[in-house]
Parts: sequence; structure tokens; C-alpha cells
Amino acid sequence: MKQFLSAADVPDINALIAKARAHKAKPFGSNHSGQQKMVINLFFNSSLRTRMSTEKAARQLGYDVITYDASGGWGIEFEDGTVMNGNTAEHVREAAGVLSQYCDILCVRSFPSLTDKDADYEDRIMKAFVKYASVPVVSMESATRHPLQSLTDCITIAEHRKAVPPRVVLTWAPHPRRLPQCVANSFAEWMLAWGEVDLTICNPEGFDLAPEFTKGAKVVHNQAEAFAGADFIYAKNWSSFEDYGAIGDFPGWQVDEAKMALTNNAYFMHCLPVRRNVVVSDGVIDSDRSLVLQQANNRTWAAQAVLGEMRG
Amino acid sequence: MKQFLSAADVPDINALIAKARAHKAKPFGSNHSGQQKMVINLFFNSSLRTRMSTEKAARQLGYDVITYDASGGWGIEFEDGTVMNGNTAEHVREAAGVLSQYCDILCVRSFPSLTDKDADYEDRIMKAFVKYASVPVVSMESATRHPLQSLTDCITIAEHRKAVPPRVVLTWAPHPRRLPQCVANSFAEWMLAWGEVDLTICNPEGFDLAPEFTKGAKVVHNQAEAFAGADFIYAKNWSSFEDYGAIGDFPGWQVDEAKMALTNNAYFMHCLPVRRNVVVSDGVIDSDRSLVLQQANNRTWAAQAVLGEMRG
Amino acid sequence: MKQFLSAADVPDINALIAKARAHKAKPFGSNHSGQQKMVINLFFNSSLRTRMSTEKAARQLGYDVITYDASGGWGIEFEDGTVMNGNTAEHVREAAGVLSQYCDILCVRSFPSLTDKDADYEDRIMKAFVKYASVPVVSMESATRHPLQSLTDCITIAEHRKAVPPRVVLTWAPHPRRLPQCVANSFAEWMLAWGEVDLTICNPEGFDLAPEFTKGAKVVHNQAEAFAGADFIYAKNWSSFEDYGAIGDFPGWQVDEAKMALTNNAYFMHCLPVRRNVVVSDGVIDSDRSLVLQQANNRTWAAQAVLGEMRG
Repeated sequence: MKQFLSAADVPDINALIAKARAHKAKPFGSNHSGQQKMVINLFFNSSLRTRMSTEKAARQLGYDVITYDASGGWGIEFEDGTVMNGNTAEHVREAAGVLSQYCDILCVRSFPSLTDKDADYEDRIMKAFVKYASVPVVSMESATRHPLQSLTDCITIAEHRKAVPPRVVLTWAPHPRRLPQCVANSFAEWMLAWGEVDLTICNPEGFDLAPEFTKGAKVVHNQAEAFAGADFIYAKNWSSFEDYGAIGDFPGWQVDEAKMALTNNAYFMHCLPVRRNVVVSDGVIDSDRSLVLQQANNRTWAAQAVLGEMRG
Repeated sequence: MKQFLSAADVPDINALIAKARAHKAKPFGSNHSGQQKMVINLFFNSSLRTRMSTEKAARQLGYDVITYDASGGWGIEFEDGTVMNGNTAEHVREAAGVLSQYCDILCVRSFPSLTDKDADYEDRIMKAFVKYASVPVVSMESATRHPLQSLTDCITIAEHRKAVPPRVVLTWAPHPRRLPQCVANSFAEWMLAWGEVDLTICNPEGFDLAPEFTKGAKVVHNQAEAFAGADFIYAKNWSSFEDYGAIGDFPGWQVDEAKMALTNNAYFMHCLPVRRNVVVSDGVIDSDRSLVLQQANNRTWAAQAVLGEMRG
Repeated sequence: MKQFLSAADVPDINALIAKARAHKAKPFGSNHSGQQKMVINLFFNSSLRTRMSTEKAARQLGYDVITYDASGGWGIEFEDGTVMNGNTAEHVREAAGVLSQYCDILCVRSFPSLTDKDADYEDRIMKAFVKYASVPVVSMESATRHPLQSLTDCITIAEHRKAVPPRVVLTWAPHPRRLPQCVANSFAEWMLAWGEVDLTICNPEGFDLAPEFTKGAKVVHNQAEAFAGADFIYAKNWSSFEDYGAIGDFPGWQVDEAKMALTNNAYFMHCLPVRRNVVVSDGVIDSDRSLVLQQANNRTWAAQAVLGEMRG
């Protein structure tokens, strides 16, 4: 792959899952492949899991890693032709060009504004780095997608499903803050592209995801209907796409034991961090059907599979 | 060791000192032991010496290291059962559980509030990480103790003492800011547990340390009395334990040449950073009896000995 | 070299350029030289290029690296004899002494105040680290100089010149913020010390650099006169040395295609980051005569040559 921004960049999702599981079985088996090469991880927004798992994955492949936190502000200009006499100090043409001099793979994280829908959904920052970098670019979450998380989720489902296709439910859940749609967009996109799950998305009215990500999925607005007979419940909050950035006040959508009882003894999944007793009850996340720590673990192997496939 | 939080975790302090000195003699002699393993250093508070010496120690053992600065705020919830709709974004159960997926040893630093004595002295944050981590936890300073510093101090005294037991004085010293009791608590705890020094603690009235740390030590409130005939003077400021967090206004407690003249040509020790001409006079810290740089150096070997003994 | 602060520390600039080009040809050819050794990169001011290129260079030599960002404030005291009861928490004697315990080479970046000319031009912070460190010190830009950039510029000119001496012009250019004189000072200093270029400096009246850096160079106040027949145009803004720290309001000094047409098809150089259409027009920086990315690349090889020559 020359870029890893979405499911569309992956020629064969099952093959990538298999590579991740091979790394998990033998973490240092490909330790030669990154020798004398450099990965730069560039964060325009904070990160814990992504930073650590991606750095660990890169090192296990033999890469050296520089992690650069630009969340404090590195005023990059993205418009062409601007007279840069304001707050931006460097154009993305130089920023991406310079970073490409120092590494073999450039990983970038950049969140959406949640105020300007058009700008966010153009995924301008990520696309500008892809355009001007001369090395492969890996998204560590962009304004619209979180593909490393979704690959992780595919791996975790592949490890735990009993039959193909399992019944998978992506459910909206409450949250007091305004969150991006990225994880949910990507989850829908990857489940549909993978083609090995029966996907239902459930969310309150007014919280449907952007149609480009959900075409082919069943979308319902009743949580009980969706949960009935499910094998996997994937909970996530997102702010509204329609009324862009609006927070939903639906505390009744918390995933709790009563709702899980409607399922086919489903596994519970969440990308973390998670607000307990808001998104999900203690009883559910602390149960032996909770896969949240396994997911966090699989972040490493997903990142290792992706980094291992990047070619200049 | 499965945890390194206090002197009580160490089966044999002399053996640990010997290991540290062996690493000092041959820094890369155990470079195989950490190969293909990861140490995560998690800082809820800033650090210079601890960060660098612990990272250097880990790398000399062959470990890879990720240093994560959470001092800017990573809202961790420590209470169980809370409805997390406020300022905390992740529960320590997940935080510790996730970090344990990414490393073989988890090192944590977390300072006290100095406003809530009970919460501080429960050492809640460190203990929560120990409880929920599935890998060994090393304290890089907690609300009540700084065991890596104290092991360093044992090493430094062992290197410089002429007879056993040397007469060691821990003296309170002035400081314009409110400081934790950690270094002093730990120093007393380790000297007493080690059992190879004759310890006197001197501090102004109202600045006695918590009794759990000083049982068995001589405590006096007169600096001149304590200094008479001493072989080592260990200076440190701490805020009041009794009137919790109060700063002491006793400029006369500065360690200066006149006071050092009362000693048995004692060595001067301090954990650094130190405010010159407040805690200690230039004349004392710049003299050839000052061991402050040797102590800073020994931080590396103390950390290396501890990391080398951690077992999952 | 025991220190790398200015051109005066370099016994033979051509030999250092040759070493940099040898590293560029074979990046890991000297990978043994830094094995089991540590470089500490200490930043009192933010950095992108310098941080990444220096870290990459050190690792390619086999060094381990700790990068420490002290830009958030680590209150170091530089005056001797002070009673440290104010905002400074550690004296440079201890700071430099401690860091020297943890590394084999200490690299430091510290910008000028641009308000106190005398203090800035004493280069107090860098000199204090040199004085109190017990390991070699490399400047990653100080209050008055940026020698790693200037070595980079020598390398880039050596790679592209057709004849010796090429005609090189250092031109002042507009900028909305108050910038240090460091890059310009060092560029003049190195070009003159190198002795293999014909240097002209052009800047508006009132923006002459400090005479100690420009002795022997032609200084003119007319850009067109300077550009005529030039082989290399090196653009850079600096605030006034005479009216210390004053910003110059001369938008007409932007480097554009019309001015480049006066030259001998000159290459365009800039150290980056650069404000497009303020310092230089899009047409010039995007032309095939622009060397800005090659310069950024050469930062790595300059740093590698310097680190490779440091001896304790």
C-alpha cells in the first residue's frame, strides 16, 4: 500500500487480518523489515492507545520511531497561493516535503473541527499530507475515519466469531461531549467492505451517519430491535452528522445488562476510552463477554500489519 | 519483585545495592535481559532526573521505552461505580489494563495534592495502577514515597561510608514553595529498613514526618545537636504533615559552612533540584564533600537494579 | 571537537563537509561509533527540523537519544551567588552537571530574548552549559548562531556550485514577526570562514548584522545590485541588530521571479519554515531552482558529521 486512509486502500482485508494475527503470534518475526528505517508519528491531536500501539508496532518491525506532538500548535497553511502574513508559519507543501526527508513512513493524526462539515468531510489535512509527502502516509485517525481502529475491530471479531457471518450491531451510545463520527464511519465502512458480517447500525433519529459510509447496512432507530439475537455489540458515541456536531441527549441508549440480555450472549466491544455508566454499565464492561482490553491489545497487531505493508 | 513502591517490597536492600553497583561497573552487562520487551514510563507530574535516569537504565538493560507525559491532563477516574459524565474520561481499570497490553513493566509518577491528607496518604493513584495493571509496577515517586531516590541514597552512602554504621542526619531545610514529604518519608523508611546507618532526623517543631516512616529514628528539633559528629548530612525541604501542606518559614535552617563545621567532616547530600543559598549555601554544595552529582549519577544504577529485578 | 558553537570550533570546514557527504552516501556506515552511548537533545525552544534531523543523525551513528522539551519552562538560574527564593528552581551548575551524568554528548537549543541585546550577544545560556557540562556540547541554535544550519548550507552549496567561488547573496526578506539574527549571523560567519564563496549581504538600511559576523563581506542596501549575476540567493528575515529586535516593514524585499531574473539563473535557498508570498513568491520556491527541501535533507548529514566528531 502507498497510503492507508480507508478500507478502499486495502486490496484484501482478510489477508491483512491474517498478517496481523501472524505478528501477534510472533511479534518479532519480521524484525528485519524496518531495520535502518524511520517512522514519524505526527499528532495534531492527543493520543494514548494509538501512539503507544503504533510506536510498539513500528519498533517490533525494526523501525526507529520519532513521535512528534504538534497539538500545541504548529501553524500549517493548507491553502495554495495565500500571502502567509497571518497565523500560519509553514505551508503543508514544505511541512510534508521536509518530513518526507526524515522518514520512510509518515503517520498522521488530525481530528475534525466538528464545526465546518464540508471542510471536515473533505479530510483536507490528511489529503494534503498524502499529496505533498514523498513517502507512504498512514492515517492514525483523520477528520472522517479511524482505519487502524477498524482493522483492529475486524481482527477482534475474526478471533471471537463462531460462525460467518456473525450478527454485528454498531450502536450509538450517550456521551456528555461532542465527539467525531470517525470511529463509527470507519467501523461501518470496514464491516461492509470486509463482507463477512451481518451489520446493523442503530442510533437515535437525527444521528444517522453520512450515507457514503453506511450504504448496504441495515439502519434502525430502535436499540432493542437491533440487539435481538446479536453476536457482537459495538458501542460508540458520535455527534450528529445531519445537525453537524450536535450532541444527543438520549441517556436511555446506555448499553446495560438488560439490553445485553436481548442478544445471543453477545460480546461487548468499545474502542476506549469509555465513560462507565454513561456509555456502558459497569456490569457489561466488567463481564467476561467484554472484549475492550483485547481490542486495545489488537491495536498493536493491526498497526504492525499496516506498517509492514507500506511501500514507497 | 512484582512491585516496587516502598522498602517493604525489597527482600534484601544490600543485595539490591550490590546489583546497582554491578550495573555501574558494567552498564551493558545485562543488556540481553530486556531485549524485545517494553517499559512504559507514565508521568502525571513533570520530571527531569527520574525520566532520564529511568529511561537510560531501561535501555541499558535492552528494553525499549515509551515515555508518556500525562501532566497536561488525562482525566482518569479512580472511584468505582461513578457515573462518568463529568471531567474524567477513562477509568483506571481500563487505563491500567490497556497500558499493561503494551508493556512488560509499567513505571508511574504521581504527586500528592498536598491539600487532602487522607487521600494523599492512601496513595490512591499508585495503588490503583498496581491493582489493575497486569504487569509489574514501579513507583517513580508517589504521593508518599520516592523509593528510587532512596535506593540511590543507600548506594551513595554505601560508596562513601568509612565505617558501619555511619551517623546520618536527615535535616529539614528552607524552601519558598510547598513540597511533598515523599523524599524525606522514603529516606527515613529506607535508612531504617536498611539498618546499617545511625539515623537522626532534625526538623522544626510542627514538621515531624508521619510516624509510620520514622519509627525507630531519633527525631530532634535542634539542628546543631543533630549535626554534631555526623558523617552524612542529607538536606531536604518538606511541607508540614501535621498542619498538612503548610510551608515552614525558618530561614535559619539553611545548611551552611558553619553548621557543616559541627560535623565529622560530613558529606553533603541532596536529591536535586536544589535552591542555592536557600536550602544550602554555595560554599557547602560547591565543596569537595558535596555528593549531589554522584547521587544524580546513581539514579541510573538504582533504576537499573530495580528494573532488572521486576518479574511479572 | 569538544564543543560545536560556531565556525571557529571547526578545524577544517571542507573536511567536515566531506564527512557529511560521506554519511549521506552511506548513512549507517559509522553505526558502530555511538553504540552504548547517549545523546541528550535539550530544547528550551520549540523545534521540528532540528529535533528530527539531529535525532535521526544520532541514531544513524548508533547513539541512543533522549529528547527533552524544556520549552514549557524549567526555571534555570544562570547567575552565581543568587539567593534562589524566586522563580528559578535549579542552577545551571547542577542542571549541566546532572545532564552530563546521563549522556556522552549534550545538544542544547536556546533562543535570544530579542529584548536585551547585551545578554543575548553574550550567549549566556549556551556558554553556561559549556562551562558546567563535563561532556561535549553541540549548539542546536543559540541566541546568536545556528551553526548546524550553516554547515548544512555549506554542504548544499558545495553540492550545487559549478565553479569556485560561486557568487552567494544573503538577502534580508520581509516577515511579520520578530525573528532572531542567528541564521543570518551564522551564514555570514561560515561563508567567510569557509572562504570558498564570494559573499554579498543585502539588507535595508538599519538592518546591518553585527559587525563581528560580517567583517570581510560586501554589504549593500540595494537588492537589485546584489542579485545581479548571483549564483545562489539565500533569503532570510532578521529583526534589527541596531534598533535591537525591531521588525522591518519592507514588503518590497520579497524574493520574486523578477528579482531572480537578475541573477545568473541562481539557486534559491531558505532554512525553513518559510512564509510563502511574504518572504518568497510561490513561483520562486516552487521552481526547479529551489533547494529548500535539499537543505532540509542535508540537516541530517550536517548533524551526523558534527556528532561524529565530538570528543569528550
